[in-house]
Amino acid sequence: MITLPEPITQLIDTFRQIAGVGPRSAERMALDLVQSSPEKALNLSDAIRRARERTSMCSICGGLTEIEPCALCTDDARDSSLLCVVEHPVDILRIEKSGAYRGRYHALGGKLAPLEGIGPDELRIMQLEQRLQEGRVQEVILALGTDVEGDATSHYLAKRLKASGLAISRIAHGLPAGAGLDLADELTLSHALEGRRRLLP
Amino acid sequence: MITLPEPITQLIDTFRQIAGVGPRSAERMALDLVQSSPEKALNLSDAIRRARERTSMCSICGGLTEIEPCALCTDDARDSSLLCVVEHPVDILRIEKSGAYRGRYHALGGKLAPLEGIGPDELRIMQLEQRLQEGRVQEVILALGTDVEGDATSHYLAKRLKASGLAISRIAHGLPAGAGLDLADELTLSHALEGRRRLLP
Repeated sequence: MITLPEPITQLIDTFRQIAGVGPRSAERMALDLVQSSPEKALNLSDAIRRARERTSMCSICGGLTEIEPCALCTDDARDSSLLCVVEHPVDILRIEKSGAYRGRYHALGGKLAPLEGIGPDELRIMQLEQRLQEGRVQEVILALGTDVEGDATSHYLAKRLKASGLAISRIAHGLPAGAGLDLADELTLSHALEGRRRLLP
Repeated sequence: MITLPEPITQLIDTFRQIAGVGPRSAERMALDLVQSSPEKALNLSDAIRRARERTSMCSICGGLTEIEPCALCTDDARDSSLLCVVEHPVDILRIEKSGAYRGRYHALGGKLAPLEGIGPDELRIMQLEQRLQEGRVQEVILALGTDVEGDATSHYLAKRLKASGLAISRIAHGLPAGAGLDLADELTLSHALEGRRRLLP
């Protein structure tokens, strides 16, 4: 029986390495690329190489940047007394989009996941402590995810940073904007109740 | 406001050129690649280039191959009196997987889609006619899709090949294997009724 040429099965396997790409979409993408114009495939090959080679993690905040250090770390207009800790470099851009924050950032590069071999030393926690020792930061805002690992990482950081004597806060968990109670799960509702804010004395 | 570095937005745009890749999954894949190890991204870049450069369309059947002409076209054990016409090179592999066919193939490279500028000259129809003129083929089996363009292409081919005097057939349309009538739409059921086969005289 005839099967796919080896370079194509190899390409399918490589596509599957991308987080969230399953066997069907890996095959679909690989077959589209080899059945379309050569330019389309070569453009993508070049764009991947270029994106990976031209962008790097800022040595200070760990964010994605083309220049070193990144524009956020060198912007004098930002408030150096606030440090927002996130999981992934791209989370910085998500918070920036909200326009609600004018302090500095620190990307950990992930969250604690012992089962996958990711302990404190695999994250940029040492670098975080070094930045805090410089003495400018007054409040650390933990903006990690609300899944089990995100919770565990937040608690771990709060405990580890306790000795610094700095204010440590965590972003609020509750109902997302525009959502009714019918769509919220029990955990979200219990977070929303816990984090309630008084409107009248 | 800070945005994604240009090479990353460029990569997202390039991913979107792949058929079936939407804005969300293009962004997800691009961000995964620039936030993972450099090897992962460079491996994918190389695998795409390699797959595109090492595989080509067989000059005879239009199938995907590493050698020219492909193994199917040079296999003497196959029946040269049957020619199965498909849309895409990969359709050949799908039919091969079924194990139900031992003839030759011809991939058109697509189907008629006038709105997208794909007319008869954009498909490998001239090459099909040349193959038929060689005189070995006795039956042409049209194995195109059952959507509007697939139907139109089948009818166009049947009309154009009429003068050849060859037997022209189309693969059966009906209920897929393992499906009940509850899951079949009206069109599938009408095809299944039209194509009914007598079991007893």
